[in-house]
Amino acid sequence: MDTDTAHKTPVTLLGLGDMGAALARTWLAAGHPLTVWNRTPSKAEPLQAYGARVAATPAEAVAASPLVIACLLDDASVEDALKDAELAGKDLVNLTTGTPGEGRARRGWAERRGARFLDGGIMAVPPMIGVPESGGYVFYSGSGALYEEHRATLSVPAGAVYAGEDAGHAALLDVALLSAMTGMFAGITHAFSLVRGEAGKEGEEGISLGEFGRLLADWLGAMSASTGEMAAQLESGDFTQGVVSNLAMMVQGNETLLRTAREQGVSTELLTPYTDLMRERLDAGHPDEGTAGTVDLLRR
Amino acid sequence: MDTDTAHKTPVTLLGLGDMGAALARTWLAAGHPLTVWNRTPSKAEPLQAYGARVAATPAEAVAASPLVIACLLDDASVEDALKDAELAGKDLVNLTTGTPGEGRARRGWAERRGARFLDGGIMAVPPMIGVPESGGYVFYSGSGALYEEHRATLSVPAGAVYAGEDAGHAALLDVALLSAMTGMFAGITHAFSLVRGEAGKEGEEGISLGEFGRLLADWLGAMSASTGEMAAQLESGDFTQGVVSNLAMMVQGNETLLRTAREQGVSTELLTPYTDLMRERLDAGHPDEGTAGTVDLLRR
Ligand SMILES: NC(=O)c1ccc[n+]([C@@H]2O[C@H](COP(=O)([O-])OP(=O)(O)OC[C@H]3O[C@@H](n4cnc5c(N)ncnc54)[C@H](OP(=O)(O)O)[C@@H]3O)[C@@H](O)[C@H]2O)c1
Ligand SMILES: NC(=O)c1ccc[n+]([C@@H]2O[C@H](COP(=O)([O-])OP(=O)(O)OC[C@H]3O[C@@H](n4cnc5c(N)ncnc54)[C@H](OP(=O)(O)O)[C@@H]3O)[C@@H](O)[C@H]2O)c1
Repeated sequence: MDTDTAHKTPVTLLGLGDMGAALARTWLAAGHPLTVWNRTPSKAEPLQAYGARVAATPAEAVAASPLVIACLLDDASVEDALKDAELAGKDLVNLTTGTPGEGRARRGWAERRGARFLDGGIMAVPPMIGVPESGGYVFYSGSGALYEEHRATLSVPAGAVYAGEDAGHAALLDVALLSAMTGMFAGITHAFSLVRGEAGKEGEEGISLGEFGRLLADWLGAMSASTGEMAAQLESGDFTQGVVSNLAMMVQGNETLLRTAREQGVSTELLTPYTDLMRERLDAGHPDEGTAGTVDLLRR
Repeated sequence: MDTDTAHKTPVTLLGLGDMGAALARTWLAAGHPLTVWNRTPSKAEPLQAYGARVAATPAEAVAASPLVIACLLDDASVEDALKDAELAGKDLVNLTTGTPGEGRARRGWAERRGARFLDGGIMAVPPMIGVPESGGYVFYSGSGALYEEHRATLSVPAGAVYAGEDAGHAALLDVALLSAMTGMFAGITHAFSLVRGEAGKEGEEGISLGEFGRLLADWLGAMSASTGEMAAQLESGDFTQGVVSNLAMMVQGNETLLRTAREQGVSTELLTPYTDLMRERLDAGHPDEGTAGTVDLLRR
C-alpha cells in the first residue's frame, strides 16, 4: 500500500454494496484519503480498519472531499441520498447504473446545485475491479473538464473510456453492451439446451459439455468480429459491403436451426424474433446484404 | 503445389458451390487426385485447369475414388445426386448442412447401400477453408473407422473434430454453435440500433460506431467465457456454483435495458423472450442461481 497520501485527491464514496466496496479498496490501496458512507453502517466497518474515514450522513461525507463518487442501487437512491448534501463546488461522479435519460437529467439536477457532473457505466463485475488484466473499464460521459482533472483518480479501480459531453452516452454504451450480452446469453442458453442430454461426460468418446462450452466460447469470440463489418456498413450506408454470408443464405440456414430445435424438443422462442427480423429485411428485397439492414427495423 | 500424388488418397467431390469449390482447391493443392461433379457443369471448368478430373455424372464421379465427399445444398439434394451411384464399398462423407435426424437417417441409408458413412458440419465460411490460422474446423460424427482411416485427408481443408459414433452429433453441435451465434447477432443488432444516430464519426469527440464495434467485440469475447461456468453448473447440477452475477440482479438489471430501449425508441422484441425466461426461473424461487436454470425451461 502507498502511504504517501499527500498528493492524492481525497475521495468520498457513497454506497458500499458489492461494487462500492470493491471500488473503495482500490482507492485506499492507491493511497487516496477516502471517506465512505453507506445507508447500512455496518458495511463500512471492514473499510475503516483499512484507513477509510466513515461519515455518519451523506452530507458529512460530501463535505469531506472535492470528488464525490456515488455507487448506489439506482437513480432514485442517488437523489434520495444526496437530498440534504451541499453540492456547490463539488465534482460528482455517478457510477450508479441508469438509463441515458436519467444520466442527462441527473447532470442538470447536479449543475443546478452548483456541481460539475460525470456519469459512469461500469463494464466489470466486482472481482475485476483493481485487476487491470481483467480488461474491465468504465464508460464516462458528461463534464469533460471534470474528467480531465480527475482522470488519474478515476482510473484507479478500472480503465477509463471517455464518451463525450452528453451525460447520457455512458449509460447508452453501457446498456448497449449489456443488451448485446443478453442476446448472446439467450443464444448460449438455446445451444446448451440442444446438446444437453446428448453430450457425453468429460473423458468419454465424443464431445463433453465442458468441451462444448470451450468450443462455443471460441466460436462466439471469433464471430463477434462481425461487429466491425456491421459498423463499417452502417457508417457507409452500403449494407452489402464486405458481406461473407448474405441474408438469403442466413435466412435459409435458419430453417435448419428451427427444424433442429423442433427435432430435439427445444422451444424456438429465443430464435424466432431475430429470424423474423432477418426475413422481414430479406422480403423487402435485400438478399445480398449482411445483417446491418435489420438494425433500423428495430426503430419502430 | 505438391505434385507427388502417389501416396495421397484419391477424393471425389460432389458439389462445387462456394463451399465445394473452396474445399476442392485445398485437396488439389495438397496433391490428392481429385474427381469432381457439379449439377451445373460450367462450375467445374476452373478446377479442371488446376488438375481436377471432371465426371459427367455422380455415378461416374463416385466410381473414381474410394472416398466420396458430398457438399450440396441440403439433404434432399444428396439423395437426389446419389440415387444412381454404386455406393457399395465406398466411404461417404456428407458435408452438406442438415439436422441431426437427417444425419442419422442418411447414415442408415448409406449403410444399407454398402457404404461407410460420416456426417460433417463445417464451422467456417469459404474464405477460411485452407487457412489454418482462421481457426475454422469441421465437426465429424458417424463411422469412427472411416474417420480414423481418412483423418489426414479430411484435415486438409480445415481442422477436424470427431464427435462420436452418433451420426447426428456433428449436425447437433454445428446447429448449436450457429444458434448461439444467431442469439449473439440479435444482441449485436439491438446494441447497434441503440447507439445508431448518437455515435459520432471516427475522429470526433466521444465514441464512433467503429470504436463501438471494437469495444462490443471485445466485451462479447470476454463474456463468452461464461459458457464454462454454465457447462460446469449443468454437469454438477448445482446452478449456484461459481455464480458472479445472480439471477435476481440480472433480472433487475434487465429492467434498465428495457427502459433504455423504450427511451431510445428501439423495439424490445429481441430482448424480451430471454428476459421473460430468466424471470420465469427467478419466480420459481432461484434468485442465487446463474443462468443455467433457464436451459431446461426451453425443453417444453
Ligand atoms: N455488482 C455488479 O456486478 C455491478 C456491475 C456493474 C455495475 N454495477 C452497478 O453498481 C451499482 C451498485 O451495485 P452493487 O453491486 O454494489 O449493488 P448492491 O450490492 O445491491 O448495493 C446497493 C447499494 O445501494 C445502497 N442503497 C440502496 N438503496 C438506497 C437508498 N434508497 N439510499 C441510499 N443507499 C441505498 C445500498 O445500501 P444498503 O447497504 O443500506 O442496502 C448499497 O450500498 C448499481 O447501480 C449496479 O447496477 C454493479
Ligand atoms: N458457404 C458457407 O458459408 C457455408 C458454411 C458452412 C456450411 N455450408 C454448407 O455447405 C453446403 C454447400 O454450401 P455452398 O455455400 O457451397 O452453397 P451454394 O454455393 O449454394 O452451392 C450449392 C451446391 O449444391 C448444388 N445443388 C443444389 N441442389 C442440387 C440438387 N438437387 N442436385 C445436385 N446438386 C444440387 C448446387 O449445384 P448447382 O451449381 O448446379 O446449382 C451447388 O453445387 C451447404 O449445405 C451449406 O449449408 C456452407
